[in-house]
Amino acid sequence: MLRATVRIELKKGVLDPQGVTIKNSLVDMGYPEVGNVRSGKVFVIDLDVDDHDKARSILDEMCTKLLANPVVETYTIEELQ
Amino acid sequence: MLRATVRIELKKGVLDPQGVTIKNSLVDMGYPEVGNVRSGKVFVIDLDVDDHDKARSILDEMCTKLLANPVVETYTIEELQ
Repeated sequence: MLRATVRIELKKGVLDPQGVTIKNSLVDMGYPEVGNVRSGKVFVIDLDVDDHDKARSILDEMCTKLLANPVVETYTIEELQ
Repeated sequence: MLRATVRIELKKGVLDPQGVTIKNSLVDMGYPEVGNVRSGKVFVIDLDVDDHDKARSILDEMCTKLLANPVVETYTIEELQ
């Protein structure tokens, strides 16, 4: 069994209202040193697969089809072990 | 300036309906090898601070006060550079 960590982020240039709201809230709360904030998602996925290459290919498919919207998001397979 | 990556995850034992839905969808889509799925959030935060220790202490405060709900979530400062 392998456990994968997949990170989904908005592409550069895509507006991130959640990130802007968090940045403004943090500045208002007394953290003027906060600059840009970008928000994203992370999924930890257990796979009943032992082969790393096979797992990576399944993850690529799953990210493209369901987890990320390739028009505005990118995905990164961060860990696989 | 430092850029931090902060990951927010549900504590073990806390129900994760989004993760369950994604797991079920992936199995239905033809990926029976998918086991447990846990969902979380990730924030990339730019800080106008040069000292790593100061940045870490600010991030700890921000996570406890705004970014994570310490009752059901844990946070990890993944990268700071």
